[in-house]
Amino acid sequence: MRILNTGGTFNKRYDPVSGELFVPSDNQAVDSIVSIFTDSIAVEGLLYKDSLEMTHEDRETLAEKIRQSDEERIIVVHGTDTMDASAQHLAKLGLDKVIVFTGAMVPFSVESIEATANLAMAIGYARNLSNGVYIVMQGVCGPYNCVIKNRECGKFEYVQG
Amino acid sequence: MRILNTGGTFNKRYDPVSGELFVPSDNQAVDSIVSIFTDSIAVEGLLYKDSLEMTHEDRETLAEKIRQSDEERIIVVHGTDTMDASAQHLAKLGLDKVIVFTGAMVPFSVESIEATANLAMAIGYARNLSNGVYIVMQGVCGPYNCVIKNRECGKFEYVQG
Amino acid sequence: MRILNTGGTFNKRYDPVSGELFVPSDNQAVDSIVSIFTDSIAVEGLLYKDSLEMTHEDRETLAEKIRQSDEERIIVVHGTDTMDASAQHLAKLGLDKVIVFTGAMVPFSVESIEATANLAMAIGYARNLSNGVYIVMQGVCGPYNCVIKNRECGKFEYVQG
Amino acid sequence: MRILNTGGTFNKRYDPVSGELFVPSDNQAVDSIVSIFTDSIAVEGLLYKDSLEMTHEDRETLAEKIRQSDEERIIVVHGTDTMDASAQHLAKLGLDKVIVFTGAMVPFSVESIEATANLAMAIGYARNLSNGVYIVMQGVCGPYNCVIKNRECGKFEYVQG
Repeated sequence: MRILNTGGTFNKRYDPVSGELFVPSDNQAVDSIVSIFTDSIAVEGLLYKDSLEMTHEDRETLAEKIRQSDEERIIVVHGTDTMDASAQHLAKLGLDKVIVFTGAMVPFSVESIEATANLAMAIGYARNLSNGVYIVMQGVCGPYNCVIKNRECGKFEYVQG
Repeated sequence: MRILNTGGTFNKRYDPVSGELFVPSDNQAVDSIVSIFTDSIAVEGLLYKDSLEMTHEDRETLAEKIRQSDEERIIVVHGTDTMDASAQHLAKLGLDKVIVFTGAMVPFSVESIEATANLAMAIGYARNLSNGVYIVMQGVCGPYNCVIKNRECGKFEYVQG
Repeated sequence: MRILNTGGTFNKRYDPVSGELFVPSDNQAVDSIVSIFTDSIAVEGLLYKDSLEMTHEDRETLAEKIRQSDEERIIVVHGTDTMDASAQHLAKLGLDKVIVFTGAMVPFSVESIEATANLAMAIGYARNLSNGVYIVMQGVCGPYNCVIKNRECGKFEYVQG
Repeated sequence: MRILNTGGTFNKRYDPVSGELFVPSDNQAVDSIVSIFTDSIAVEGLLYKDSLEMTHEDRETLAEKIRQSDEERIIVVHGTDTMDASAQHLAKLGLDKVIVFTGAMVPFSVESIEATANLAMAIGYARNLSNGVYIVMQGVCGPYNCVIKNRECGKFEYVQG
């Protein structure tokens, strides 16, 4: 299994000088979680973007990383706003992999529980799946087109795809 | 899915008066994690014991709770010291359920990451399993007789069952 | 002693729906710290503003609250950007009180250590002072015109007033 | 100012292998707090003991460290059970210093707020004192013989000395 970390709220940290949250160009949040596992999981960072800024080229870059990965099972940590678009993009490519998207509505650095639970559930869920693209967020697990973000209440929900 | 919380290190909290960690008779730690999920998961507490004190009768009580549960998929939060014994006890009973044991080496109240990751991974893992008894700890997932505690280094490991 | 909480970074919390930090209209952060004390300290909220939005009228409101307080020693939790301006405003009024300003560069909800240390140090420092206006931030304690914010490195420093 | 760290609950950490809290032979907890200050404060560790194990010789060692310190103001981080005995021991020696004892009822590593608040308040309180021995715990500040531990409710209280 390999974790590809593209940034998003999951990774945001607070900058005391600017007074703002930003997406850092590192995998500190993911690494903090992965470090408690007995067997190391490969973690690779790319893009490091707020998902609202994710472009078509970025999605191609992500797809290429997945194609080049030796691992059959890939977890993608991604911003929540366009997680569905990136997932759909990958689904159309029909890659021969298990790809599970996850992220967080609250940064790991602000409150670690949601981010930790989402990533760990995605990993557990990915173990027994057949090839395809999936989303795991806030306890909701399913094919990518069945898990959507309800922007009004800030929760991910299961819908019939 | 239903979570049966039997206690163990996962749940321990610090008592400032005695200066000791104790297993509280509540589900506060489990509830803190479950509260971030969109759909509520049933959480039920029983025994609330350090697993070194778990008796044959306690394991029968746990088995009975599982038999009586409407849910097909059961997560058991359990102390790590005799998690294997309880899992074996249940496996011998051949219940028609997916039963996944989890717990933590560090109390949720001391440092939430491991406990949160273990419970969430157990839930994700349980979604796609066929009936049987499993253990999920520290990133290691498998049939109950393939996941053992290495007492010297305080880590769970995968072994050939 | 009385704590007057005007808002600022000290109090900011994350809103998962907007993805932004905001100044809540409550004293949750201050209360979390004060709750560990044996004797309760009066906590009163007002304004609840980012200090960049603090107006002359707001400073008058704060001054009036202080005048009306029975307590001789007042801690003011305030945003860091205009803490000096509010302190100077109060100093000119020559109130017959010990007034100690504090705040935080990192929100209590993001990382509690700095906010907790600043407030507690301000309280300890206030115990033995003669009347006047002071600032306590990041371990630096002194008359209000001797403690300034270095905006480039995000640290408060002691200067000769 | 100098911080002498003797151990006690303040410093305790959880050992996942033994399942117990222990007093580590380092200053990690104190350093985590001191690191947010603009100006560094000297931190020196000694004894690293649960205060129930503190002997007459240990108190002599502590006194000697204080005598040898260049600093006029000394903060002693100490276990709560015999904090009063160590403070009395030092008071009898009549050292020409400001000595403020503090500690915590809950380890910094379990829940950082009380430990952080106690240490920071002790530092703020120490700034404006005349020579003598004092205790600062849970918001209570005073001469060492006026601040006592109520063992039943686990709270420090102010009494007439």
